[in-house]
Amino acid sequence: MTPNDQALKQACTFVLSRLSPPSAAETLNRLARHAASEDGIDLYGEGGAVERLEAVTTDRLGKETGLFFIKGVTAQLCVLRAYAEARNCRNVVIHPLSHLGMDESDAIERVADLHAIRLGHHAPFTTAMLEDVTEPLAAVVVELPLRRVGYLLPDLDELHAISAWCREHDVPLHLDGARLWEAAAGYGVTEAELTALADSVYVSYYKGLGGLGGALVAGSESFIRTLRVWKTRYGGNLFTAYPYAIAALDGLEQRAPHLPSYVERARKLADALNKLPDLIVHPRRPHTNAFQVWLPGTPAALTEQHRRFAHERKTWLFERFGEAPLTGYAMAEIEMGPASDRYVIADAMEHIAHFLTFIRA
Amino acid sequence: MTPNDQALKQACTFVLSRLSPPSAAETLNRLARHAASEDGIDLYGEGGAVERLEAVTTDRLGKETGLFFIKGVTAQLCVLRAYAEARNCRNVVIHPLSHLGMDESDAIERVADLHAIRLGHHAPFTTAMLEDVTEPLAAVVVELPLRRVGYLLPDLDELHAISAWCREHDVPLHLDGARLWEAAAGYGVTEAELTALADSVYVSYYKGLGGLGGALVAGSESFIRTLRVWKTRYGGNLFTAYPYAIAALDGLEQRAPHLPSYVERARKLADALNKLPDLIVHPRRPHTNAFQVWLPGTPAALTEQHRRFAHERKTWLFERFGEAPLTGYAMAEIEMGPASDRYVIADAMEHIAHFLTFIRA
Repeated sequence: MTPNDQALKQACTFVLSRLSPPSAAETLNRLARHAASEDGIDLYGEGGAVERLEAVTTDRLGKETGLFFIKGVTAQLCVLRAYAEARNCRNVVIHPLSHLGMDESDAIERVADLHAIRLGHHAPFTTAMLEDVTEPLAAVVVELPLRRVGYLLPDLDELHAISAWCREHDVPLHLDGARLWEAAAGYGVTEAELTALADSVYVSYYKGLGGLGGALVAGSESFIRTLRVWKTRYGGNLFTAYPYAIAALDGLEQRAPHLPSYVERARKLADALNKLPDLIVHPRRPHTNAFQVWLPGTPAALTEQHRRFAHERKTWLFERFGEAPLTGYAMAEIEMGPASDRYVIADAMEHIAHFLTFIRA
Repeated sequence: MTPNDQALKQACTFVLSRLSPPSAAETLNRLARHAASEDGIDLYGEGGAVERLEAVTTDRLGKETGLFFIKGVTAQLCVLRAYAEARNCRNVVIHPLSHLGMDESDAIERVADLHAIRLGHHAPFTTAMLEDVTEPLAAVVVELPLRRVGYLLPDLDELHAISAWCREHDVPLHLDGARLWEAAAGYGVTEAELTALADSVYVSYYKGLGGLGGALVAGSESFIRTLRVWKTRYGGNLFTAYPYAIAALDGLEQRAPHLPSYVERARKLADALNKLPDLIVHPRRPHTNAFQVWLPGTPAALTEQHRRFAHERKTWLFERFGEAPLTGYAMAEIEMGPASDRYVIADAMEHIAHFLTFIRA
C-alpha cells in the first residue's frame, strides 16, 4: 500500500478488514505497561519475555518445547533443513500455492539446498496424492490454512489421514501454522488437537494475533535442539527480541480468545455476500476468519475505483486486488478481526453492495 | 552469562565494561518518547523509522543507499550471495578469526553455497596475502576491527592497499563493519573515509551504539537492489521493525559522538595496565575502544574467582573468560563505553590490580 493509500485509509470512518496499525509510540507505551516488561530482558534467546513466551506457547500447543524466531521464513528453513540433514534426504512435500511455494522466492531450494515436491493445485493436497510419491521424503508440510487459495483447510478427516500416512511411512509431518490459531478456530478444535497430528509446528504472532512479528517452532526436545545451529546460520539468533515477545504475549492474551467469533462473523458475512450478484465468494463458507471475494474487473481498474470510493464514501473495503483464477475478475481478501467489532455484518454487506454498484456505474 | 551472574553483576557498584541493560519497560518508554515514534510505522521495510534510519545512516556512510536488516548474519549472507551470483563465482576471502569465520557455524558455506578462502592468522590479512590467491574471487571481506583477535585494525595504509588491490583486480571489497563506528574512532577518521575504500559495508546498531539490534548494508543503488530477493529468501523481510530502528537512531544520536573519548580511555587504561605484573595487554595500544587482557589461570578457575571477587568487592570486571593464545593464561575483553563515564581510569586500574592480587592469594 502506498503512503497515500495509507493516509486515505486512515481518513476512512469504516474499515472492513484490517485497521491501520497504531502509532509506534502508542504500541511501545502499551508494551511497556505489560507485565512481561518487568521481566529481565532476553539475551540471545535466553531469559525474559522470550522464555516466557516459549513456555506459554509450547504449553498451549501441547508440545514438549518451543523455540522463538523473529521470522517464520527463517523458522521453517531451519525446520526443513534439520529434517533433511537428520534423514539424509533433500525432498520435502509442499503445496505449490503455500507460503513456502509462492512467497519466499524459492528459499528452500536456493538457500536450504532442498528439493520441493509440489502436491496439490487449487485445494490442499490429499493423502491420495501422497500415495503417488515414490521418492524418499525428509518431511511433509501442510499449511493451515492455505492462504493464497482462499484460506482453505483440508477436511479434518483428511488431515487425520495425512497424519496417519506420515506416521505409517515414518515421514515427519510439519504444520505451517502461520495462522494456526485461526485454523483451530475454523475447525472448532483446540490448537493442541491439531498439533498432536504433527511432529512439529510453526506458529506466527502477528497476523491474527496482532503482534509486531515473530514466530515459534514447537516439537520434541530432541528435534528442537537440532534447530539451534541452523538458527545461528540463518541469522535468527537475535541479541534481544523482547518487543516482539511482549507483543506476542499480549496478542495471545487479548486477541486469541476472539478468533472463534471472528470465524463466525466471516461465515455470516460470506453467507450474506453469496446473495449479491456480480460477486463470487470463495470459499462459499469460509474455513477460517478470512476468505476471498472475486469482483468483475481488472486489479488495476478496481484499485483506482476503490480509491475513489474510499475518498467519496470514507469507506475502506479491501487492502489490495490481485489476479483471480476466473477471467474478467479480480480477487480481494476479507478478514474478520478487531475492525469487525465496530460494525454489524449487515452494514458491512451494504458497503460491499454499494461498492459493486459504484464499479458498475 | 547465567541468570545468577546477571544478578550478581547488577548488585555490583562498579562495572568496568558493559552496564547491565535497562529493563524492557524503561527502554520501551524511552523509545516511545523518541521523535521517530511519531512517524508512521514501517511495513515490510518501507516507511517509518526504518526508512528514516536508512537515510540517516547512508548519508553518514557516504554511500548511495542502504538497506536495513534485523541481523548482521543475514545481511552478510545476502551481500556475499549477491556478489557470488553476479560474478558467477563462489570464492570469498575472509579472515579465519572473523565473525564470518568463527561465529556463524560456517553459514556462508552451509547456507549460502560459498567457498571461504581464509587469509591471515592472528592479525588482519595483508595485500601480500591477497597477491598469493590464484583463484577467481567474488568478494574480499575485511572485518573492522577484527574482534576475536583483540579488536585489531589493519594499518590505514594497509587498508588503502587492500582497497587498491581489489579495484585493480576488479574484486568487490566488502567491509564487515559490525564495529565500524568504533573503527573510525580508532583510526581517527570519519566512517565515510573508511567506506569510500569499499564497495559495500555492513554496520550494526547495537554493540557500540547500544541499540536493540539491527544492521544496515550500504552501497550503490544497483548493488543494494540485488540484495532484496536474498533478504526475502533468508527471512530478513520483517513485518515491522520500528523498535530496532528507533533504538538505532537513538544510538547514532546519543552514543556515537562519545566513541572517540571511549577510544582515548581504552588507550589510557591499557597504558596503565601495561605496567601491572602478571597481566598481558593485547594489543598494547588498543586500536579501538576495546582490547584483550590475558590473565594467569584457566577460564574455569578465573570465572569462579571472579564470582567470589564480585561478591566480596561489589566489583564486576569481566563478562567472560575464554582461551588465550598463551598457555597458562585466559583471555578477557575490556570495552570502554557508558560504564566508563562513572569512574576514572586510575580507579579502574586499581580494581584490576586488586583482582590480580585476589587471584594470586
